[in-house]
Amino acid sequence: MEFLEQAQRARAAARALATASRGRKDAALAAMAQHLLDAADTVLAANALDVTAAQEAGTEASLIDRLRLTPERVAGMASGLVDLAGLADPVGDVVRGWTNPNGVQVRQVRVPFGVVGIIYEARPNVTADAAGIALKSGNAALLRGSSSALHSNRAIIEALRAGIATTDLPVDAVQLVEGGREVTADMMAARGLIDVLIPRGGAGLINAVVEGAKVPVIETGTGNCHLFVDASADPDMALEILLNAKTQRPSVCNALETLLVHADIAPSFLPRALAELECAGVTVHGAPDVAAFSERIVPAGPDEFDAEYLTLDLACAIVPDLDAALDHIAGHTTGHSETIVTADLANADRFTAEVDAAAVLVNASSRFVDGGEFGFGAEIGISTQKLHARGPMALTEMTSTKYVVTGRGQTRA
Amino acid sequence: MEFLEQAQRARAAARALATASRGRKDAALAAMAQHLLDAADTVLAANALDVTAAQEAGTEASLIDRLRLTPERVAGMASGLVDLAGLADPVGDVVRGWTNPNGVQVRQVRVPFGVVGIIYEARPNVTADAAGIALKSGNAALLRGSSSALHSNRAIIEALRAGIATTDLPVDAVQLVEGGREVTADMMAARGLIDVLIPRGGAGLINAVVEGAKVPVIETGTGNCHLFVDASADPDMALEILLNAKTQRPSVCNALETLLVHADIAPSFLPRALAELECAGVTVHGAPDVAAFSERIVPAGPDEFDAEYLTLDLACAIVPDLDAALDHIAGHTTGHSETIVTADLANADRFTAEVDAAAVLVNASSRFVDGGEFGFGAEIGISTQKLHARGPMALTEMTSTKYVVTGRGQTRA
Repeated sequence: MEFLEQAQRARAAARALATASRGRKDAALAAMAQHLLDAADTVLAANALDVTAAQEAGTEASLIDRLRLTPERVAGMASGLVDLAGLADPVGDVVRGWTNPNGVQVRQVRVPFGVVGIIYEARPNVTADAAGIALKSGNAALLRGSSSALHSNRAIIEALRAGIATTDLPVDAVQLVEGGREVTADMMAARGLIDVLIPRGGAGLINAVVEGAKVPVIETGTGNCHLFVDASADPDMALEILLNAKTQRPSVCNALETLLVHADIAPSFLPRALAELECAGVTVHGAPDVAAFSERIVPAGPDEFDAEYLTLDLACAIVPDLDAALDHIAGHTTGHSETIVTADLANADRFTAEVDAAAVLVNASSRFVDGGEFGFGAEIGISTQKLHARGPMALTEMTSTKYVVTGRGQTRA
Repeated sequence: MEFLEQAQRARAAARALATASRGRKDAALAAMAQHLLDAADTVLAANALDVTAAQEAGTEASLIDRLRLTPERVAGMASGLVDLAGLADPVGDVVRGWTNPNGVQVRQVRVPFGVVGIIYEARPNVTADAAGIALKSGNAALLRGSSSALHSNRAIIEALRAGIATTDLPVDAVQLVEGGREVTADMMAARGLIDVLIPRGGAGLINAVVEGAKVPVIETGTGNCHLFVDASADPDMALEILLNAKTQRPSVCNALETLLVHADIAPSFLPRALAELECAGVTVHGAPDVAAFSERIVPAGPDEFDAEYLTLDLACAIVPDLDAALDHIAGHTTGHSETIVTADLANADRFTAEVDAAAVLVNASSRFVDGGEFGFGAEIGISTQKLHARGPMALTEMTSTKYVVTGRGQTRA
């Protein structure tokens, strides 16, 4: 099917979804989950084709791991849809309301965006997740997955649409967008057809969409996350947070990438921290002042402090004071999650006030900056832009608002 | 000065503004107002140069009226700045907050965007308005005015900066961006330097910025506003709202452009409505079924129902029922302000639920969709996009949020 026809079908579906009650949407989510479970064998067989093709193409193991589905992963996708049905529906929430002096009443009410386009890489589970989050928030979804997951995505979408077809919601609420690269360009140019575009994936994909799109984009960006260990930090606490933020899951955007240590605490803190990091398999990159505390420091290159490693690597620098830490972060942050460990209230306050990021943390691991950890129950991504949504994006962030203005014939003087 | 250097100065100023208290910002606004009043003669002399040049270039009278400053208009700009000082400061507001089960506390706090770029046409009053709104909301402003208002804008900016210079805020909080068209392109491409770009002006300017920009844009769009007179409408109320919405100030985006009349009420309502519209100087464009009620109807062209006239013209159509009205609006709306006049509760509910626009009105004039009428006290524009802000944009809409996460050493399991 042509993209334009798909987009028009999505718009028509969005009009129906906008007024669908929570009950009807939850019933559709339950049916989508059941049909996905029923189609598990078909989905796994389709996925096997994609995995084999990726292996033959010499794709690296970590990407194949993201691509591969198992019976457990399919069950996880289905239970994710069931969980969505259990969440509150943001649509219809009254954000604020008041009565003007002339008696005209104004309410600001949450409404769906309409049509949401999602462009993502070869992770078939995103297909079900994104479809479910879009539907729950009343949006029609145009899902543009990777061609290397095409068989998997087709099978998943077919199951989801079969589920929707058993309800009174339009099946075109969920569509897979197929075709060559020109179709991605079509999506990026689809003003009036797509209300919001969300790229999910690596920095290359996100930059291409942000720079090329004419429709509004929500940037789910990269995380060059910093941890500043202040002079007053409890060293045990700093060490625990350091190891957790760096090693608990290094491949994600809220993992730690740069450690900044106050010069006053460096002589006591760094030898222990570097030893523990080495035990945990972390390679530390730093200048000679850091290398003075360990023989295993890799000399830091010129771009070291701008790297989002997503691996067991860590850039490290010693800074003379809080101001230097703030300057370093201002110069290198990607605006994701920045942390201070300190016992000093004034420094904690300055850090949270002055650091410009989606999340600023005091004495806690940056790994908490996550929709699930925040209790949102669902997450479409973590926004690093400042427009519309910043930080973990859940159902509420998948909505817009409208003003409902009611009078008894009032006119403007 | 080169644009890049201006943008870097703006970023530095934004860092200082982000932590400025309301008191410091209000003091700067008062100083800006005072210096603008003190410089009134200089500003008026500069404006006279722009007006003369525009007249010599044969610019049309309505544009020259927008360009022209008077002592009263300068005083109005200054009092606008004083009024801003009296408004609440959204920065620091806690939008929501909670404690996670592990004791980690999360607060979502309002923060400035950082650097806001505003691209606008030859209306020098926008220079002071936009500078004031940006500063009050803690943002540094890069103001890109029209070259045909350059002398006026320079004089205004000089006065505003002289005012800021008497306070402890950075003068680079407010900067005029000069230069040829390539500088507009620089602004649109300034990812990482400009956080949000707001075009203010006609459809051509807005489309060029929306389509060309790589930085996030807030679209302050056009208003093809509809009024649907339902079969159950009180005809007197419908007539009053019709005349108010069309004629009270036809040149603005919340003025009425299209009238839809339910077929059942057309024979009683339209003859009276068309006569009154004619008395008010309105030219009505319609099909033969409308022309049956008046000899002065101008035949509607193929694009008539997509026109934003901004003049005393009105497109008119008779529709068989509410569904047809909803379909017509869905096909032609620009998503600004759409109105129903009805006595039928179910129809009012359907209209407000199903029409997809920034504002939906029941029995009230669309002229109320305005920051001032909403009681916001300031308005940077009316957004017709769904991302971030929709409808009248005031100080709150000039902010983003950040999550402040505080713990006692918690790490993720």
